[in-house]
Amino acid sequence: MTRHAEAAIIVIGTELLHEGRVDTNGPAIAAALAGEGFDPVIKITVGDDTEAISAAFRVAAGRAGLIVACGGLGPTFDDLTREAVAGAFSLGLKRSPEIRGAIMKMYGKRGLVAPESAFRMADLIEGAEALANRHGSAPGQMLHGPPTIALVPGVPVEMEAMLHEEILPRLRALGLARPPARRIFRITGLFESQAEQRVRPALERHPGIQPTILAAPGQVTLILRSHESGAAELASAADEVRALLGDAIFSEAEEGIETVVGRLLAAEGKSLATAESCTAGMLGAMITSVAGSSAWYRGGVICYADDLKGGLLGVPADVIGEKGAVSEETARAMAEGARVRLSSDFALSVTGVAGPGGGGPGKPVGLVWIALAGPDGTSACELRLGGARSVIRELSCRAALDLLRLRLGHAGGHAG
Amino acid sequence: MTRHAEAAIIVIGTELLHEGRVDTNGPAIAAALAGEGFDPVIKITVGDDTEAISAAFRVAAGRAGLIVACGGLGPTFDDLTREAVAGAFSLGLKRSPEIRGAIMKMYGKRGLVAPESAFRMADLIEGAEALANRHGSAPGQMLHGPPTIALVPGVPVEMEAMLHEEILPRLRALGLARPPARRIFRITGLFESQAEQRVRPALERHPGIQPTILAAPGQVTLILRSHESGAAELASAADEVRALLGDAIFSEAEEGIETVVGRLLAAEGKSLATAESCTAGMLGAMITSVAGSSAWYRGGVICYADDLKGGLLGVPADVIGEKGAVSEETARAMAEGARVRLSSDFALSVTGVAGPGGGGPGKPVGLVWIALAGPDGTSACELRLGGARSVIRELSCRAALDLLRLRLGHAGGHAG
Repeated sequence: MTRHAEAAIIVIGTELLHEGRVDTNGPAIAAALAGEGFDPVIKITVGDDTEAISAAFRVAAGRAGLIVACGGLGPTFDDLTREAVAGAFSLGLKRSPEIRGAIMKMYGKRGLVAPESAFRMADLIEGAEALANRHGSAPGQMLHGPPTIALVPGVPVEMEAMLHEEILPRLRALGLARPPARRIFRITGLFESQAEQRVRPALERHPGIQPTILAAPGQVTLILRSHESGAAELASAADEVRALLGDAIFSEAEEGIETVVGRLLAAEGKSLATAESCTAGMLGAMITSVAGSSAWYRGGVICYADDLKGGLLGVPADVIGEKGAVSEETARAMAEGARVRLSSDFALSVTGVAGPGGGGPGKPVGLVWIALAGPDGTSACELRLGGARSVIRELSCRAALDLLRLRLGHAGGHAG
Repeated sequence: MTRHAEAAIIVIGTELLHEGRVDTNGPAIAAALAGEGFDPVIKITVGDDTEAISAAFRVAAGRAGLIVACGGLGPTFDDLTREAVAGAFSLGLKRSPEIRGAIMKMYGKRGLVAPESAFRMADLIEGAEALANRHGSAPGQMLHGPPTIALVPGVPVEMEAMLHEEILPRLRALGLARPPARRIFRITGLFESQAEQRVRPALERHPGIQPTILAAPGQVTLILRSHESGAAELASAADEVRALLGDAIFSEAEEGIETVVGRLLAAEGKSLATAESCTAGMLGAMITSVAGSSAWYRGGVICYADDLKGGLLGVPADVIGEKGAVSEETARAMAEGARVRLSSDFALSVTGVAGPGGGGPGKPVGLVWIALAGPDGTSACELRLGGARSVIRELSCRAALDLLRLRLGHAGGHAG
């Protein structure tokens, strides 16, 4: 096998082709394999059809030394992966008495008798090793090739556990996995193209480093990988990237800005409240997506109707009347009102025109004001955003969190 | 071409294989083609590599009469789809003077000179028709086969417009598209397996109808399709499904429960407020994901810290002390407090243990109380949910909205 072993992923399920169902298993498997030094060259999605699955395996075997396939291992009539793989490589299927016994026992525990169909899950492909399924009943299977073939169930939690606990350790033990060195930078406040332009000099100086840039609303991820060049070159490229991006880097780990802000607040023993208009709770929901956030988040006010900006937060009616609900003054008053009324150290506010309606002269769709009130005063920031309603709202939330990150003195991305 | 023409989708982009980036273009294309009566039999994802793209087209051409490929049509060095398709089918590439002129003009308008690389977008595959790109600069291409091949850009908004405005109309005009009759049911309050069990008798009586069931947290979608059998059989199956599911059906269109509830509130001229603890704004954000929601949503209170349940909503301290923050009494008091303090006709509340921490004796992770206060009184409902923190929170929000839907007298799923 070459240094960068090629890998193929096969994802099985008619719903992925007919109903617009988005596949998250395939990307998770591909990313995990890339993280182990494999080069994922192809992903094939097919429906629950024996002939189509067999054909996918034959195509994959022609392109890769490792095939990981997901789905079609359950007990029902449309679970056809076992038969299809056996057929593709002219192998037999043999019912394993051990797995059969385990299935009977599992049903027995619940006071049920296993239907005959359940024992199909005990059919092992000739030469395959069964893989334990910690979260479900369908075992996986692994064939030592070439090509090496691993079959995992399509239920995400079952797939994840089997991939990380059964398959990757075996690939490492076999010497097939060779994790490349890798650095990740999470960036905010810049668009993908701006981030790319800023770091270009560093990337041009280090052609041995493979960069990847990914964008989500309000968040850019830059990954540097080094297969061939040494650790020293990766470290040097990372240092240059750090210098070029400065405090636009909010983390050097796989985490969102809400996690970073939470950690900073927890470290300082400070609390946060929110006052939201156009995002209407999205900022609060984002902050509390982090488990344990009750340690730093107190709560918030959603003042979608303008009179509630006064009633719940004390924003003076004449501020809204003269400056408008989407204005620096209103954003400041919302943050200050939330800080006092919810007794928090800091308060963030968001008010804007998320669209598609609601724009007006001087207040176009995408105009958003965010503000941060704290013990050392209040700051505010105007955003002029583009995109769909959902994108404008998500960007606004991340921008607000970034205001707090920078206030908390988190400059630069040196992981803690 | 057979009645159900087979279609293949090819998605191009290294980031989809290396970084765990989830592909939404492929599913959108597949679903659109299925909606036009095609049978999407395979989707192949490959990186930005000419040989790999060519190979994918050859595999696809062996399995389908229609190939739609997405990505790799831009001007940069890693946009290789044009060359790869030409290579796969031994066709030439010819630079179109018209497209070249349009590119020069487009750059000129912004006061820029087009770089030489931009003109690669004018390279048409021999025999191909250029497809207009209303949202970007890279035109698509269509080759009249067999196989019929359509190339679209990877930027989602560009892909969507080109697919629906350029490609599908051409496929219909050619007589290749044959939309099947279709009914959709959006269901809440039942798990996927429960919904399936309930409708099974109807499906067994109508074997000519193809059913599909899809699940998301708190929402099941049932689709019935009729290719072969007539409109009468589909209507009869739909009537039976409607009778079996009753008011578990919240819509017979492609819309979420937040849209249905918004429409019901708007129709009655009633307003809504929210009081959230464990969901911390997710319910408000969900309600306001519907454009125009300011017509019925007033705002809400996020009382994540227990003292705010008293301070902002007037929940008596002894209720929280004796019954706990996660209790029927607290949920009721939160909803009633929000209704009064935010001056709304209705108010929904959510308080629960979303996990992973925070559970306790008698209050396990997944225990959630929701309540609805309205002009005719307050009702409450206990949920015992499983799954990840994010799933428990999303389920709670949808269950709360369903409480209001049923209160508003929306029984049965007859679309308005």
